[in-house]
Amino acid sequence: MLADKNEARTSLEELGEFGLIKHLTKDFDIHQASTVKGIGDDAAILDFKDSKTVVSTDLLIEGVHFDLSYMPLKHLGYKAVIVNLSDIYAMNAMATHITVSIAVSNRFPLEALEEFYSGVAMACKVYGVDLIGGDTTSSTKGMLISVTALGQAAEKDIVYRNGSKENDLLVVTGDLGGAYLGLQVLERENEVFKVNPGNQPDLEPYSYLVERQLKPEARKDIVGLLEKLEVCPTAMIDISDGLSSEILHLCKQSEVGCNLYEDKIPLDPTVISTAEEFKMDSTMIALSGGEDYELLFTIDQKDFPKIKGNPHLTVIGHMSEKAEGVHLIARDSSKIPIKAQGWNSF
Amino acid sequence: MLADKNEARTSLEELGEFGLIKHLTKDFDIHQASTVKGIGDDAAILDFKDSKTVVSTDLLIEGVHFDLSYMPLKHLGYKAVIVNLSDIYAMNAMATHITVSIAVSNRFPLEALEEFYSGVAMACKVYGVDLIGGDTTSSTKGMLISVTALGQAAEKDIVYRNGSKENDLLVVTGDLGGAYLGLQVLERENEVFKVNPGNQPDLEPYSYLVERQLKPEARKDIVGLLEKLEVCPTAMIDISDGLSSEILHLCKQSEVGCNLYEDKIPLDPTVISTAEEFKMDSTMIALSGGEDYELLFTIDQKDFPKIKGNPHLTVIGHMSEKAEGVHLIARDSSKIPIKAQGWNSF
Repeated sequence: MLADKNEARTSLEELGEFGLIKHLTKDFDIHQASTVKGIGDDAAILDFKDSKTVVSTDLLIEGVHFDLSYMPLKHLGYKAVIVNLSDIYAMNAMATHITVSIAVSNRFPLEALEEFYSGVAMACKVYGVDLIGGDTTSSTKGMLISVTALGQAAEKDIVYRNGSKENDLLVVTGDLGGAYLGLQVLERENEVFKVNPGNQPDLEPYSYLVERQLKPEARKDIVGLLEKLEVCPTAMIDISDGLSSEILHLCKQSEVGCNLYEDKIPLDPTVISTAEEFKMDSTMIALSGGEDYELLFTIDQKDFPKIKGNPHLTVIGHMSEKAEGVHLIARDSSKIPIKAQGWNSF
Repeated sequence: MLADKNEARTSLEELGEFGLIKHLTKDFDIHQASTVKGIGDDAAILDFKDSKTVVSTDLLIEGVHFDLSYMPLKHLGYKAVIVNLSDIYAMNAMATHITVSIAVSNRFPLEALEEFYSGVAMACKVYGVDLIGGDTTSSTKGMLISVTALGQAAEKDIVYRNGSKENDLLVVTGDLGGAYLGLQVLERENEVFKVNPGNQPDLEPYSYLVERQLKPEARKDIVGLLEKLEVCPTAMIDISDGLSSEILHLCKQSEVGCNLYEDKIPLDPTVISTAEEFKMDSTMIALSGGEDYELLFTIDQKDFPKIKGNPHLTVIGHMSEKAEGVHLIARDSSKIPIKAQGWNSF
């Protein structure tokens, strides 16, 4: 007899909705003492005691936010969680719980959902958050994911977008532009693959970029680091849409202006070399690329000695009077207004 | 000059994502003292003080959960909220906050989203809950909605699905089957309309059923009523999938059996007459129809005098030993096992 070379495919109808949820969530552990009741009732019950409750939610749609031709389902599950946790950390809060709802068309077998949930489970484990609910249903087209993240924080620690003051320093974590270039590399390889399916792509030189795109991390560590350094940012936001868009949010809500220094923007060497290869401007990519999930915050100048020289943190500018506006100070000292969706020389 | 008879159509691109969110949420008031920060930052901040936090979420997909050919968008917005609040009330908790995420294809103009959000706003107002976040994005096909509801409750008041004991009484609120028959009526009229678009449907005789389908209410009042009557249910669930499915959940999680009496199931006269018209069994509709969003709960027998004669509450059965199983006691005294998705004579 010939061995069955087909991958296992179990149709979702075989399990039914409740069987499916039970099956997919059986390996999820509880990490948080605040989880009174997780999955399995009409609602979950949480006990945050004296802390404030922090809530954020995101919707991810196949064909709009992700492309399964180069996004493995396990990575997608991981990333769907990360994207939401990042919003909680951007409040200087600790993420504690998530709900994950998913709708899939009947082209997805059970094994695909298992892959997706294994990524969700890994993110829960790495970040110590509990999956406490969700909804699983069919869609008429493709896959869509809705994640709600909850977290907790003491009132005094919560950082909003609207607290930046004139002369505050603008600080960014990590480096920027990698996720966007990772997507460019994956899309190029996907085009090559379509023309020549036998071609094995060599992604090794781009591994940092591809990982930034496919398996981003949220900066939970920064919330801990800031606490250790005894630095409380005056305002904070996460970088999901690109640096320029996030700076504009901070400036608008804080009613300040900003000078951003092009030569200070932290870029990984691979970002610089790959941007050149794609004939793109690396500053433009950092400003408008998005999906880096780094944190952008402002601190009072008196806190500068506390963060000086820290490898995770880079001062990239300072806040100014609102009337001064929001500008990029380019390497040639020219002052370019930053507008929504990149700056005006885009 | 001729008046422009076209309905106003503003494309979503004109506003951009942030403009759109701001526009759609501008008329939402804050009702809850616990809302520290609503829409406008990376996450919302809530202060539940000593209460527990209650969380539930649902996904609604066009073509799977709703059909826009007979579901007006305002009603859809209202219903999307109600469906989620119902899960919070089913914990004997008070709903306080919601997030609403929506994805739409480019066939939806701004005015369609305004209609949807006006329904969301109305539900928020009627139920006193605050909209605190969400996500607005494009879809590749149709409309999809993800709502997460939050609520609060004192620990001693929370009612799970797993607390029913042998001999507890099974109680249901309101009446059953209306929402399912409302859908049948709407689908029939939709078919007639397709054949003869000039035909004006007379929905007047079915107004109760159509309203149960298009504008259901969640039983917030019951949470207050139970408190007033000093009755704490031993277990509770909301009826979204039909009575039989919910009874099975209670029995499974509480490890008890149940006898449900067919002649006790509360049915509106319109349900009985319309079921006859459609040549359907009204008991079957109550058992398997779904979408009634009534509450189903069990109480200790000693609490019976407290609820006796209350027009909102009907005792429809009692819990038994697990080994006895779950049965419908039919009008002719025959004992029919209740299985998932209706009973076995379906």
